[in-house]
Amino acid sequence: MKIWICPGSFDPVTMGHIDIIKRARKMCDHLIIAIGVNDEKKATFTFDERKEFVEKCTKDMDNVEVDTFEGLLINYASKKKATAIVKGLRAISDFEYELQMALLNKKLDEKIETVFLMTSINYSHLSSSAIKSIAKYDGEIKGLVPDVIHDDIYLKLKKGK
Amino acid sequence: MKIWICPGSFDPVTMGHIDIIKRARKMCDHLIIAIGVNDEKKATFTFDERKEFVEKCTKDMDNVEVDTFEGLLINYASKKKATAIVKGLRAISDFEYELQMALLNKKLDEKIETVFLMTSINYSHLSSSAIKSIAKYDGEIKGLVPDVIHDDIYLKLKKGK
Amino acid sequence: MKIWICPGSFDPVTMGHIDIIKRARKMCDHLIIAIGVNDEKKATFTFDERKEFVEKCTKDMDNVEVDTFEGLLINYASKKKATAIVKGLRAISDFEYELQMALLNKKLDEKIETVFLMTSINYSHLSSSAIKSIAKYDGEIKGLVPDVIHDDIYLKLKKGK
Amino acid sequence: MKIWICPGSFDPVTMGHIDIIKRARKMCDHLIIAIGVNDEKKATFTFDERKEFVEKCTKDMDNVEVDTFEGLLINYASKKKATAIVKGLRAISDFEYELQMALLNKKLDEKIETVFLMTSINYSHLSSSAIKSIAKYDGEIKGLVPDVIHDDIYLKLKKGK
Amino acid sequence: MKIWICPGSFDPVTMGHIDIIKRARKMCDHLIIAIGVNDEKKATFTFDERKEFVEKCTKDMDNVEVDTFEGLLINYASKKKATAIVKGLRAISDFEYELQMALLNKKLDEKIETVFLMTSINYSHLSSSAIKSIAKYDGEIKGLVPDVIHDDIYLKLKKGK
Amino acid sequence: MKIWICPGSFDPVTMGHIDIIKRARKMCDHLIIAIGVNDEKKATFTFDERKEFVEKCTKDMDNVEVDTFEGLLINYASKKKATAIVKGLRAISDFEYELQMALLNKKLDEKIETVFLMTSINYSHLSSSAIKSIAKYDGEIKGLVPDVIHDDIYLKLKKGK
Repeated sequence: MKIWICPGSFDPVTMGHIDIIKRARKMCDHLIIAIGVNDEKKATFTFDERKEFVEKCTKDMDNVEVDTFEGLLINYASKKKATAIVKGLRAISDFEYELQMALLNKKLDEKIETVFLMTSINYSHLSSSAIKSIAKYDGEIKGLVPDVIHDDIYLKLKKGK
Repeated sequence: MKIWICPGSFDPVTMGHIDIIKRARKMCDHLIIAIGVNDEKKATFTFDERKEFVEKCTKDMDNVEVDTFEGLLINYASKKKATAIVKGLRAISDFEYELQMALLNKKLDEKIETVFLMTSINYSHLSSSAIKSIAKYDGEIKGLVPDVIHDDIYLKLKKGK
Repeated sequence: MKIWICPGSFDPVTMGHIDIIKRARKMCDHLIIAIGVNDEKKATFTFDERKEFVEKCTKDMDNVEVDTFEGLLINYASKKKATAIVKGLRAISDFEYELQMALLNKKLDEKIETVFLMTSINYSHLSSSAIKSIAKYDGEIKGLVPDVIHDDIYLKLKKGK
Repeated sequence: MKIWICPGSFDPVTMGHIDIIKRARKMCDHLIIAIGVNDEKKATFTFDERKEFVEKCTKDMDNVEVDTFEGLLINYASKKKATAIVKGLRAISDFEYELQMALLNKKLDEKIETVFLMTSINYSHLSSSAIKSIAKYDGEIKGLVPDVIHDDIYLKLKKGK
Repeated sequence: MKIWICPGSFDPVTMGHIDIIKRARKMCDHLIIAIGVNDEKKATFTFDERKEFVEKCTKDMDNVEVDTFEGLLINYASKKKATAIVKGLRAISDFEYELQMALLNKKLDEKIETVFLMTSINYSHLSSSAIKSIAKYDGEIKGLVPDVIHDDIYLKLKKGK
Repeated sequence: MKIWICPGSFDPVTMGHIDIIKRARKMCDHLIIAIGVNDEKKATFTFDERKEFVEKCTKDMDNVEVDTFEGLLINYASKKKATAIVKGLRAISDFEYELQMALLNKKLDEKIETVFLMTSINYSHLSSSAIKSIAKYDGEIKGLVPDVIHDDIYLKLKKGK
């Protein structure tokens, strides 16, 4: 069984993430969206909020599971018997960092692959931090995040202030 | 009327910034240098110092206005009826980030362009943070910042200590 | 008067080119689309075909002129009293090459600027050579080139065989 | 059934290619190695030689098929009912080109994904053209190409002279 | 006499650093490993720990000296009568930053060169921060850091918690 | 004795090359400028012209030798008992290619290092091909090539027509 893991901080989940998730889940048998909790303090949304956001957006995708992990991604992937880690690639800076991580993870556990999908052209300019900046100043983020969490993001950002 | 906006944190303004400003103001009718105040706390110089520095350096340029803004740049640009945002490009990492911002701003307000000028060869190695590092340890920054603010920078950096 | 020059081989003109042309012509008073004839032999379409394609696509844009040039772009720009050369930027490899050319042209004639616009997200994956590959094997290029030249491209490519 | 296509000119196949092939074939049900014949004239090895080399190197891999194609890769992939195209990524220049191709292919046929694997660290400096340069001047290519075709490469290169 | 300086934060020293040190010391007469103390607070290991680690790893290299510096690297290099600064290059992001620093340092003191060595292929995926992440979660860093400091790193990281 | 090799096609030698040569010769005991003759046919200047140009520009540099080589650079370097190959780095595309060559050469002969110097800021926009384009159309190349070969370049380019 091909188990793929799609890791990230999802702070919050964007249309770019959802695009990768939708495409990745068709390429494997089971896709685990793994939200990292290591750097919880630096995140804008609490871990529960981030998880709730992702779950709302993926609840109709039958082979998708939302989970969390602490510690090294590669250890988590190994425990889950994952065959691959899947990541979206947007830009050169992504590429450099992801290349380094992929090579390092390969060294730590040779059995687990890292596969990359190019982020769809419509979302290549998106990032979680850009969305937070826009929402924070009451800019419009419709189309940048899934509709089901659109209002929640403004709400939670305000509450956090 | 072609109104261009040259945004930045200008912490402090460098010869590289001045080079872009001088060239940009010839390409439009009115150039607004817009100092962002969002991240005031992380800046080395206070907002007033940064504004004073830019004003000193541009006081003889008749179609240049120094202003400040809070919130989203694109909203500020729209309010000012700007036709374009102008940025200097130095390096790959600049390029990636600016590309993402330009595409995002285009999505937020299709009427406003982002135009890029290549930073002149003599200043392509300059950055505000490099200048602060040099000045902090009593290195020489003559030629890296405009002469009129040269002494002020050392003075203000010392005071801040 | 702000005269801008948009140079290229336009072999053939793509939706990406048209996007840059439409945006650039609003930023200046007069836009000259300058088709380079230096490397005629390597081009797929003849010089006349390339010029005809661009003219068809821009005939309703009142401040746009289609011209040709031989020799150094900077000399041509100077003769035309251009204030700036405008180029679309897509990717890192574009960026590197264009940066080098901009710096070199600045050295050859300091009065003429080079300004860059980011190619719109919808056309960032387009290139003239990709279009030719697709058309050559009867792939569909609708949406990749302006409609008015769509059929011509297939026709001319076939004739050339 | 997950059918993946690994396209290339394989002129000749290198240890880097074999590394990607070995890893890719575990991630899908059936892997087609598709040698492009469009630019036959520019290739150093004839099409038959290139195919023979790949077949020799993959004859023990049960879910791997070696095939050839002419025309657009995406059309070939569609005809083969492929679910994905798989490519190895080495460097920035690879990345830029492959990103453009992936986005373009996605536009031409939305159902077919492009997935990327990072070339293993031991082969990231390898390219077919580097190998040909070394072999041409009697340098040693052991470890750079699969052992089973090592001698053939010198032989064929000499014959071609 | 050719005195080279190999600067860094060495937090902690990795096999990648040691590779550069070993190669650099053969290219000069005397190599000074210069640990910067400016950003002490952000470092994971104390300055004494970092120095001790480097000393342990280089104690058998006769023309290597371990030293520390505060302030501008170029001033330190000048005081030490260094003829060159030597740095390892791994990736694009390294390259951009190091290019800027090299040009700036050249401007500050024209007599001192900056030379670059490419990090060996086996260590190109290594960074001090990656090692700390792995060790922190009890992952295995054997082969990533010199054996003589392997246990110390786990020990010190635990103590620091 | 530290013997360094500075390889290239030098078609023709530029101020950028001379800058690297001047700086490299101070870092070693003996510097060999090695002009590659493999791709003679594609060069604009004949091998004799290229060699003559370099010799004219370096005749006052006592530890510099001008030589030619055919075949693999690494074999030539080994035969000359070189300890290092020295290259100038300008841009990302340079970097990628040179990184690949350095790693490959290291694999072919572990004893020979490749060291990189950043091309001086004043010459970072220069290339042999840019110079030829300018000279071909009677543009001015003063300051881009050494004065002693300035007239020769125009002369030889004309003759070749």
